[in-house]
Amino acid sequence: MKKSDLLEPIAGNGLLHRRLFLKSSVAAMGAAGLQFITAKVATAAPLEVPAWMQIPGTGMSGYGARSRHEEHIQRSFGSLPGTVGVGSSKTPLEHLEGIITPGALHFERHHNGIPDIAPLEHQLLIHGLVDRPLTFDLESLTRYPLVSHIHFLECSGNSGANNAPKPPQLPASSIHGLVSCSEWTGVPLAVLLDEAGVQSEGSWILAEGSDAAAMSRSIPMAKVRDDAIVAIYQNGEHLRPANGYPMRLFLPGWEGNMSVKWLRRIQVTSGPTMTKDETSKYSDLMPDGRSKLFTFPMEVKSLITSPSGTNAMQGTGLYQVSGIAWSGLGRIRRVEVSADDGRTWAEAALTDPVLPRAFTRFRLPWRWDGGPAVLQSRAIDETGAVQPTRTVLLGERGANYRYHYNAIQSWAVSETGEVSNVYS
Amino acid sequence: MKKSDLLEPIAGNGLLHRRLFLKSSVAAMGAAGLQFITAKVATAAPLEVPAWMQIPGTGMSGYGARSRHEEHIQRSFGSLPGTVGVGSSKTPLEHLEGIITPGALHFERHHNGIPDIAPLEHQLLIHGLVDRPLTFDLESLTRYPLVSHIHFLECSGNSGANNAPKPPQLPASSIHGLVSCSEWTGVPLAVLLDEAGVQSEGSWILAEGSDAAAMSRSIPMAKVRDDAIVAIYQNGEHLRPANGYPMRLFLPGWEGNMSVKWLRRIQVTSGPTMTKDETSKYSDLMPDGRSKLFTFPMEVKSLITSPSGTNAMQGTGLYQVSGIAWSGLGRIRRVEVSADDGRTWAEAALTDPVLPRAFTRFRLPWRWDGGPAVLQSRAIDETGAVQPTRTVLLGERGANYRYHYNAIQSWAVSETGEVSNVYS
Repeated sequence: MKKSDLLEPIAGNGLLHRRLFLKSSVAAMGAAGLQFITAKVATAAPLEVPAWMQIPGTGMSGYGARSRHEEHIQRSFGSLPGTVGVGSSKTPLEHLEGIITPGALHFERHHNGIPDIAPLEHQLLIHGLVDRPLTFDLESLTRYPLVSHIHFLECSGNSGANNAPKPPQLPASSIHGLVSCSEWTGVPLAVLLDEAGVQSEGSWILAEGSDAAAMSRSIPMAKVRDDAIVAIYQNGEHLRPANGYPMRLFLPGWEGNMSVKWLRRIQVTSGPTMTKDETSKYSDLMPDGRSKLFTFPMEVKSLITSPSGTNAMQGTGLYQVSGIAWSGLGRIRRVEVSADDGRTWAEAALTDPVLPRAFTRFRLPWRWDGGPAVLQSRAIDETGAVQPTRTVLLGERGANYRYHYNAIQSWAVSETGEVSNVYS
Repeated sequence: MKKSDLLEPIAGNGLLHRRLFLKSSVAAMGAAGLQFITAKVATAAPLEVPAWMQIPGTGMSGYGARSRHEEHIQRSFGSLPGTVGVGSSKTPLEHLEGIITPGALHFERHHNGIPDIAPLEHQLLIHGLVDRPLTFDLESLTRYPLVSHIHFLECSGNSGANNAPKPPQLPASSIHGLVSCSEWTGVPLAVLLDEAGVQSEGSWILAEGSDAAAMSRSIPMAKVRDDAIVAIYQNGEHLRPANGYPMRLFLPGWEGNMSVKWLRRIQVTSGPTMTKDETSKYSDLMPDGRSKLFTFPMEVKSLITSPSGTNAMQGTGLYQVSGIAWSGLGRIRRVEVSADDGRTWAEAALTDPVLPRAFTRFRLPWRWDGGPAVLQSRAIDETGAVQPTRTVLLGERGANYRYHYNAIQSWAVSETGEVSNVYS
């Protein structure tokens, strides 16, 4: 690429080549006399010694806290009317960067609140179609081989707000914040089942939580054998109560509530149990009036987090479009970005590591010239699946299909710099 | 591997092959009538409904907290006598799993406490041998291209307690806890320097912090051009005050205090500045009385975290040896474990992802028969560097070399199951 081409758009409305983000490109621009970003950069005056350098700072602590200037960054939440702990809280995606979600900001979805479990009393029972029913406490579980993986977790109801006839004018997290990404460490469930000895007709399991809803789901044995774990650590430390302390099921890439929290019971069965949680909820009503059950994987999806809904641009000039992509079917292969409502697309840079069933961060330089624009991202995973448009998705599913919304998100940028949610 | 060989030791004192941890091996054991771990596993009685399932749980929250049963897991710390914030706090490594360290438990090392920085007032000045001195505030920095990487950070004084003539009897974290691993997101410093235009004689930089110690270090330009970033996010959220809020330098793989926190000034220079922080401290006294300056990379190292110092074994039987390995020079290629004081070694299983200059988690099955044992781990990185024994390391360096201790850690297991620190 020639130096003079570095600032030439490669797609409509000012999207630039991802190579502009290479250090060598920036140096080449400097050599060509081009300035990268002019906003907020000025000739330096000598620095004054600020007040905080003139006194000793505070000391060490046993368990650290955020800056008081960051405490406004919170999950957004609300309980359902008339209940204590039924509902969800959402990760503030537009305030985060990279791929790891801090434990304190991981989304929540509870069906009857967070149980106050005494870890030494909690037990996991494995029974049903097994040779030897077994119980495990926390200490015995940690004697089994542990595995660790970075994976996203997404509620199947995530992004459902975009099913509404008019696009909700909300921050990105209020629409899409029922997804987070952590390092999960636990014991492969297959190891525990092999200890118990699964009988030949054992083709499904029932997983039950130790919360006041006894949340329970059916899971086919093939998934259990593939990559299910009983998780006991999240991002290095023990699970937090809101995420299943002291142990939870974790099913990489599958709809969130199947990863049953506060796991207390695994029953090996010869078929699905048809629990209240997979029939009254977490099933999808199709246009012909029938329900679609057992739509397990969360499919390929992406989201621009910056700029995003209710943000405002800080004047014209060079920006970076930053977002996350994920797929329950494997790795993200490619993310494309459009600034002209999907007419032209530019390939975004993916940040290593690109891991299966994990957030992948993508970024692309964009020169906003002050005109109206519609920003979109479109992810493609390693199976070749392409994130659909909203029109295509809703066309196939009809008006009553609530879960598994994975359509392309469109953010309109107005001439005055406001960012809003639009249906493209 | 034959089923009957699965429980045969492959190295002295009961170390088993890492393939035992494969799910297929466990199934094979079950088929052969072998039980994997017998401790704490019993025939199941019907589960009672615990008290916490009989009442609705607590609701959602904006910023989550740990379980009250986990609050005893804290960093260990102490200020130096007569000071407020000079000293360090250490990550409780033996309580963590996987490779990510939660922000609240990242180690601290402060030279005059944590400054209370107003983020909107903070500025970064780039000056010295540049064409255009520039200042950046937090908002303007986020307009530049961000990169994200998972990297360890280690204080060069880490593990110095093992320089003492007698092995300290402390938890692993009190000896080795000045190391942590996070996802860091920031702007490549090379991009910012290119904006300022580095002059031909600019071959080093000086980096200065905005704390009351004005902590400052010299860094060669080659490292800056390679992978230095100005970090603004850690594990997804903005840096915490103890880790440099609102911005810090981050130099992957190099000794911790060069990654200057609360970064306020980068001066491009023609050589090292010889600051107080790189001459009075962070230099190593050699046997001939001269000082070794500028020993930047933290070299290949590993540590068994479970079992580890002051732990006690829970009876004989199958355990997993679990630990972390890291190298400032690149990826970990291999970790070996010995249970017989280094006479024989078995290769450990490495957990993906194995990333450059990041923690790599290793694990290996071990059948403890109740006899005395000495557990060690030995890491080899992709440059071929092998972690040295303590005898070799101290033999080369003499008695006054304080920093960059990376020798093999030996944990003795007594016949009664106590785990202690020994010099092998």
